[in-house]
Amino acid sequence: MNDLKHKILMQVENDLEEIEVALQQNLNPYLDLVSQIAGHILFSGGKRLRPLLMVLSARICGYKGDYDKVFSTIFEYLHAATLLHDDLVDEATLRRGKPVANSIWGNAATVLVGDFLLARSLAIAAETKQPDVIKVVSGITENMSQGEIHQLMRKGSLDLTEAEYMEIIKRKTAVLFQGTCRSGALIADVSLTKETALSDYGFNLGIAFQMVDDLLDYTLDTATLGKEVGADLKEGKMTLPVIYSLKSADEKNRTRMENIIKNKNFSVNDFETLIKMIDKYGGQLYTQNLATEYVKNAKEALAVFQNSKTKEVLLMIADYTLSRNF
Amino acid sequence: MNDLKHKILMQVENDLEEIEVALQQNLNPYLDLVSQIAGHILFSGGKRLRPLLMVLSARICGYKGDYDKVFSTIFEYLHAATLLHDDLVDEATLRRGKPVANSIWGNAATVLVGDFLLARSLAIAAETKQPDVIKVVSGITENMSQGEIHQLMRKGSLDLTEAEYMEIIKRKTAVLFQGTCRSGALIADVSLTKETALSDYGFNLGIAFQMVDDLLDYTLDTATLGKEVGADLKEGKMTLPVIYSLKSADEKNRTRMENIIKNKNFSVNDFETLIKMIDKYGGQLYTQNLATEYVKNAKEALAVFQNSKTKEVLLMIADYTLSRNF
Repeated sequence: MNDLKHKILMQVENDLEEIEVALQQNLNPYLDLVSQIAGHILFSGGKRLRPLLMVLSARICGYKGDYDKVFSTIFEYLHAATLLHDDLVDEATLRRGKPVANSIWGNAATVLVGDFLLARSLAIAAETKQPDVIKVVSGITENMSQGEIHQLMRKGSLDLTEAEYMEIIKRKTAVLFQGTCRSGALIADVSLTKETALSDYGFNLGIAFQMVDDLLDYTLDTATLGKEVGADLKEGKMTLPVIYSLKSADEKNRTRMENIIKNKNFSVNDFETLIKMIDKYGGQLYTQNLATEYVKNAKEALAVFQNSKTKEVLLMIADYTLSRNF
Repeated sequence: MNDLKHKILMQVENDLEEIEVALQQNLNPYLDLVSQIAGHILFSGGKRLRPLLMVLSARICGYKGDYDKVFSTIFEYLHAATLLHDDLVDEATLRRGKPVANSIWGNAATVLVGDFLLARSLAIAAETKQPDVIKVVSGITENMSQGEIHQLMRKGSLDLTEAEYMEIIKRKTAVLFQGTCRSGALIADVSLTKETALSDYGFNLGIAFQMVDDLLDYTLDTATLGKEVGADLKEGKMTLPVIYSLKSADEKNRTRMENIIKNKNFSVNDFETLIKMIDKYGGQLYTQNLATEYVKNAKEALAVFQNSKTKEVLLMIADYTLSRNF
């Protein structure tokens, strides 16, 4: 475990424990099968980053109530719902080193349990009785589904531009991080300035998080990542490291890279060749640098807040996004 | 068209037109593909019964605002979302005489557009700024997904009881009708007595509606129904006509029926034999009589309202549920 991760975990240990309990207690299904399938995705080593961000956002705004942990489950249930549906959409085989839910229980039950989790998160949002929180949560779902559809429509498209990639990751990832942090501000009932600051922090963090996630596909092996090597590419997902290097390559090498990408059954050797090519044209470095920019923006957004332990943790989480290896 | 249907349509012509416009205007997608897939299910000859029930429920409670049509779209979008996911779950081929969305656009896009419609309905609910309406809407989705999962778990189970069947149709159908009518009362801000009356009306109507729907599978041919003959049974769905007659049959005939049911590739002849058997043991009649009871309860629930044109329409809709042939 790296130092930064250790430092963060020291600060949020109690929060994470309470979030874990809240996730167990608020699922509320009437069928065992729902507990099983939802449990498979919910309790399989997720980082709880999204609920944690809401709890910390509420705290930095001076929230003193005791409903933050319950409300924070909204964002983990929402996340789990989209993971269930995405694994089906992507025809993935592994998630966090375990077989995906649809490979065990089939597509039908997986779709429906995803729907249940979506509904559950909205029901908990409704319990806040704060129309703004509810609007944020339903807005997140609208954006995420459309981001995923956009990605699906452009599967395997070698001409996907950086601008389109940005549009997709904004909707499918950043809007959730943004909404999570903003909801923390909303339940703490702070000024619009602080609400906007947390919203910006979350958005920028989300973009950086997804970029690093996409980068990991071109740097790590299956054991560390918990999914297949080259999984994104096998699913036809064109991400920034590839997009950038394809654009920068000379014709000969671009053709070489395109041929590997088009052949979805590429060998490990082919994939290593591709990684080297991406590296040659600076795709990883470009992505890493851009993610660093977004992390910088995220941290700067917090300038409106006075120094505090909570602020420190939020800043560390931003930095950690760049160094994480899972 | 039967007389009752004609009479109802005369009274609600303007409402239906306005609902149609609202359904077009409130979808709000940013991708064409979402419009296409959502449009395929939304604008394919649906009856608009659910939004109409909300509009009429609001009106009988004296609602004078002009947001009822917009809010009513919540229940049609919700319904459309579940149809998209259900057709995938059921591996159906036809819906209202047209190929199901997933057979045209694939499972992935269909799941995601269903998610978008769910989110859209909750976003519109959030715009009401009424926590009770929002809770009703998220509660409907929780119930529907669990009802569908329950049905899925018991697919092809010859021992499904009437009580379990009732539990399933309550969750998958009646709760939506109930929530629709109750939301009409909620936006009109009436007394709890009237809210409960409309809630009861909707619940009982929903049960009757689903029973008649299940009955139609054992009485009509594909052209009228817009789906395959014996579709429910081919999907392993045990519904009341079958459940009742299986329970009532002598051992020899029960075995005969069970053999047809277990063979999912039954011939048209087999299916005709089964229909005759169900008829012999009174399955259709029992279902029709029980549905009639629920319609009676639905109508009685409206006793707290003074006579009015709107009340007349709600009563006619209840009666029509029993005589509809689509």
